[in-house]
Amino acid sequence: MTSYTAPLKDMQFLLHEVLKISEVDLPGYGDLDKGFTEAVLDEAGKVASDILAPLNAVGDREGCHLENGIVRTPTGFKAAFDTIRKGGWTALDAAPDYGGQGLPYLMHTAVNETFVSANMAFNMYQGLTHGAYSAILVHGTDEQKRTWLPKLVSCEWTGTMNLTEPHCGTDLGLLRTRAEPQADGSYKVTGQKIFISAGDHDMASNIVHLVLAKAPGGGEGTKGISLFIVPKVLVNDDGSLGTRNAVSVGKVEEKMGIHGNATCVMNYDGATGWLLGDLHKGMKAMFTMMNEARLGVALQGYAVAEASYQNAVAYAKDRLQGRDVTAVKNPGGPADPLIVHPDIRRNLMEQKSFVEGARALTFWGATLIDRAHHGDLAADGLIGLLTPVLKGFQTDKGFEMAIAAQQVYGGHGYIEEWGMSQFARDARIAMIYEGANGVQALDLVGRKLATDGGKHVMAFFEMVKAECKAHDGDERMSGFVEPLKAASKQLQAAGLYFMQSGMKNPNAALAGSYDFMHMMGHVCLGLMWTRMAKAAYLALDTGAQDRDFYQAKIATGRFYMARQLPACGMHLARIETGAETVMALTAEAF
Amino acid sequence: MTSYTAPLKDMQFLLHEVLKISEVDLPGYGDLDKGFTEAVLDEAGKVASDILAPLNAVGDREGCHLENGIVRTPTGFKAAFDTIRKGGWTALDAAPDYGGQGLPYLMHTAVNETFVSANMAFNMYQGLTHGAYSAILVHGTDEQKRTWLPKLVSCEWTGTMNLTEPHCGTDLGLLRTRAEPQADGSYKVTGQKIFISAGDHDMASNIVHLVLAKAPGGGEGTKGISLFIVPKVLVNDDGSLGTRNAVSVGKVEEKMGIHGNATCVMNYDGATGWLLGDLHKGMKAMFTMMNEARLGVALQGYAVAEASYQNAVAYAKDRLQGRDVTAVKNPGGPADPLIVHPDIRRNLMEQKSFVEGARALTFWGATLIDRAHHGDLAADGLIGLLTPVLKGFQTDKGFEMAIAAQQVYGGHGYIEEWGMSQFARDARIAMIYEGANGVQALDLVGRKLATDGGKHVMAFFEMVKAECKAHDGDERMSGFVEPLKAASKQLQAAGLYFMQSGMKNPNAALAGSYDFMHMMGHVCLGLMWTRMAKAAYLALDTGAQDRDFYQAKIATGRFYMARQLPACGMHLARIETGAETVMALTAEAF
Repeated sequence: MTSYTAPLKDMQFLLHEVLKISEVDLPGYGDLDKGFTEAVLDEAGKVASDILAPLNAVGDREGCHLENGIVRTPTGFKAAFDTIRKGGWTALDAAPDYGGQGLPYLMHTAVNETFVSANMAFNMYQGLTHGAYSAILVHGTDEQKRTWLPKLVSCEWTGTMNLTEPHCGTDLGLLRTRAEPQADGSYKVTGQKIFISAGDHDMASNIVHLVLAKAPGGGEGTKGISLFIVPKVLVNDDGSLGTRNAVSVGKVEEKMGIHGNATCVMNYDGATGWLLGDLHKGMKAMFTMMNEARLGVALQGYAVAEASYQNAVAYAKDRLQGRDVTAVKNPGGPADPLIVHPDIRRNLMEQKSFVEGARALTFWGATLIDRAHHGDLAADGLIGLLTPVLKGFQTDKGFEMAIAAQQVYGGHGYIEEWGMSQFARDARIAMIYEGANGVQALDLVGRKLATDGGKHVMAFFEMVKAECKAHDGDERMSGFVEPLKAASKQLQAAGLYFMQSGMKNPNAALAGSYDFMHMMGHVCLGLMWTRMAKAAYLALDTGAQDRDFYQAKIATGRFYMARQLPACGMHLARIETGAETVMALTAEAF
Repeated sequence: MTSYTAPLKDMQFLLHEVLKISEVDLPGYGDLDKGFTEAVLDEAGKVASDILAPLNAVGDREGCHLENGIVRTPTGFKAAFDTIRKGGWTALDAAPDYGGQGLPYLMHTAVNETFVSANMAFNMYQGLTHGAYSAILVHGTDEQKRTWLPKLVSCEWTGTMNLTEPHCGTDLGLLRTRAEPQADGSYKVTGQKIFISAGDHDMASNIVHLVLAKAPGGGEGTKGISLFIVPKVLVNDDGSLGTRNAVSVGKVEEKMGIHGNATCVMNYDGATGWLLGDLHKGMKAMFTMMNEARLGVALQGYAVAEASYQNAVAYAKDRLQGRDVTAVKNPGGPADPLIVHPDIRRNLMEQKSFVEGARALTFWGATLIDRAHHGDLAADGLIGLLTPVLKGFQTDKGFEMAIAAQQVYGGHGYIEEWGMSQFARDARIAMIYEGANGVQALDLVGRKLATDGGKHVMAFFEMVKAECKAHDGDERMSGFVEPLKAASKQLQAAGLYFMQSGMKNPNAALAGSYDFMHMMGHVCLGLMWTRMAKAAYLALDTGAQDRDFYQAKIATGRFYMARQLPACGMHLARIETGAETVMALTAEAF
């Protein structure tokens, strides 16, 4: 019952008027002119709307099932995956040496948004493959790259990440999967991994599992962990597929959502694997995947919200219920459409202003990744700082907005047939996987703020300050600059509080970590809205055709600044109460 | 996988130390001594834990199914319903004239909480019956009362509410179901109703549908609506069951949650019905049910959160992951339990402080209902004002807390087997049914604030002021009184803003209605926590045995005041931006 149309105009505005990408001095960016990106995104949008979106409800309804050791995906998934492969969509930003098209990560991000909005569960199969590709590209030997990368780039084979075990998730130091070295340089991997997304399925001839395990001699805790490549099917020297490896699916989990993706219990029973990267340095190699995966999840946060928002808008325009209190808007009909009502507007504006702000933040983040890939250490530090913010804030808000969109439908929102429940159930996982959002907050406050002596967070504040300063005296921009200034000051005050009180008691900082993450998310979106408003005013000032579009951008931004940035004051007030009330009870008193 | 234990100690504290019910001058209250309420609640708690809770997951998994025109409930539901009936649990507060036990509504509320926590979907069958009972009790003729009430009180027959139609929910003026008067004084009812909870099932020999329909001569809109009693099976003059009425189930809906309750499409094809209450005054009669139903839903909000909280606490104490940053707490184990981590604490404290505060508000609300039943107009006005706040705020927060509890489980929270997803999915409906929460906000700001010239809201503010004044100079209470004073002032400022700007533009008030509802919810819980803290200090000062219990109450309240009341400042800031940014876009710009 739901539908999806890629927001091409919004994307083009970001790429060419806000980020001005074809002026950016990075390899590949010069080719990204308006015509090129429009052609790519238009085609991606068609795939998303016509092929992926219609399978979204199918995947939810049918789910994935283990049949005689093989995981069956929902009707139509295999054909769609073939279409994606053939269209080259899995290879956009991969290295040309391995069959990729060598486009910037930014283009992958924009295309990815449309696919996730249309069908999040489906897109995870290639999303995880992209993560495995990146890890092998960075940490693999030349031989490993030659063996695995071309097939991962084309998605002829897909990839997975194997971290979690039944007794350990965040605390990987506890993991029990073992890797025993063999005479031929390979390892025998033994253990059980759980929550393995795309762990098995019937859409690829092989699956390349990247598995964290402990090899002898590495010591206790995370220090002893290494990363291994463990394929489902062993590969012969000539690259052809050989015998099945000792890897099997124990179970496909019944979940709240993303039913179209097979979440597997994976059993490794002396499976043959090869070390990826340095021995006992597996955590580092895994983080190459994790950081990218976290940005991918941050994108899921707003991409699902975009899809649910589009449907909520359509329903609000279509459903007749009640009358506008100021003046009847639909005199010929029995009632006015829902969209006339102020509280429905408030709800839709919250969705719209979040989604557009988060898209800007994510696209900008993708440009930082591209810079980092080309050796820009400042960009690398900044995206490292922002990654937990994007992941935690955007997935929390994305879920909140999917719930808000569902609310517009009233009772129909609760009925599965209408599809709004699926958006909410699917969006829920993004707050949990790739590090639950509480862990993101801990990473931000406990680690990232202090990275490189606090250099990156200081650079972030300087950037916000410079943005505000650039509009000094510009009356039109004061609705953006003043709230941004205030929120940024509050964020700095929170950081200062952490420094001062966290010295004496680390819990005083950690008790406020979640609030800080949300506060920083609001400041980031405030910064993005300020930049978007500037670009929109420039377009209006220079005679742009589509004045309605730019005026709507400015109005949407003004809503965000006026209605959402006040959350920062609340977060600061909470943070400044420290750990006292949070930690007052004994564990027994709960 | 989940379990539930009734919070008897917390309930007894509220009943006897905060509300001091046995000192209240109302019929029946004098009998509610500690021993009596403990006996009743202890027994109810056993039924909830031992009979209803084990069926919660069963109901979710199996759902209800239409088989050859009959709706089949999940395995074990029928036997459990018999147990509830036999135990007299359905008749607690019903009138003795009709087989009830004549206890105050407050006792019904407390018992109901335990049943809803244990199994929300199951409890709806009797919950809706209670609503039908109340409507017939107030609006029925003597004959109608004799015919229907005894069977509804015993739940030998169950009841439903039939408002919604495919094209109309909130805007009942649009409804199309017709009632044609017959020569014998009955009516023939024809039309389709949707979203009828407990619309049909196999646990009772008859179902008494209360149906809104238009009878000739009533004019357009809601004015033409009347309420009808339309039984599934016609009743003979001697009270025995006769022939089937022309009522049938069109469909059982597939929903996001509450699968154990049959949500039906009901078709009335010239079904025989009898007018309940005055002709063309059906809205008034229906509101008797609606107000009670809304308080019942408000209770669902926190009752499900109580159940999910209990399980989150158990998991947080059991699951070993990471180490306390200040000092290892479980040196003998591989890691410390989750509950040592500040952000897990923050999460659990948010749940605990909300649930206990909402319980206090709901129990206090129940005493207002009891007063209103005995003719207290001030209490009636106050509970009328508070009903949308309880419904909207408690169900929004209850869902938020079920999501928070699910989050404590990490990946396991997303797997259905663990049961945390069900709490979230079940809790979601409470924000929608009995008037979506946006409609509650509209009712509050558009109607209730101004009821009787604003008398009730002024009385509410006076009550808060008096509570604060009572603790003037009490140092220990300043952590309660100061935040409550500040929040109450902010709430009054918002009300003033509505009065001033709403005159010129009603949208300026309506655009802030949702924020106002939440703000008022926080002030209500702040008031409750102040009262609970006072009672806890009194107990400590007078040598109470269980000092840990009272100290935990005070600490939990202090958390709520310090960490949650700051939300009021944010809501006020949003409200004071008025309608401008909310209504700036044309409908086409969405």
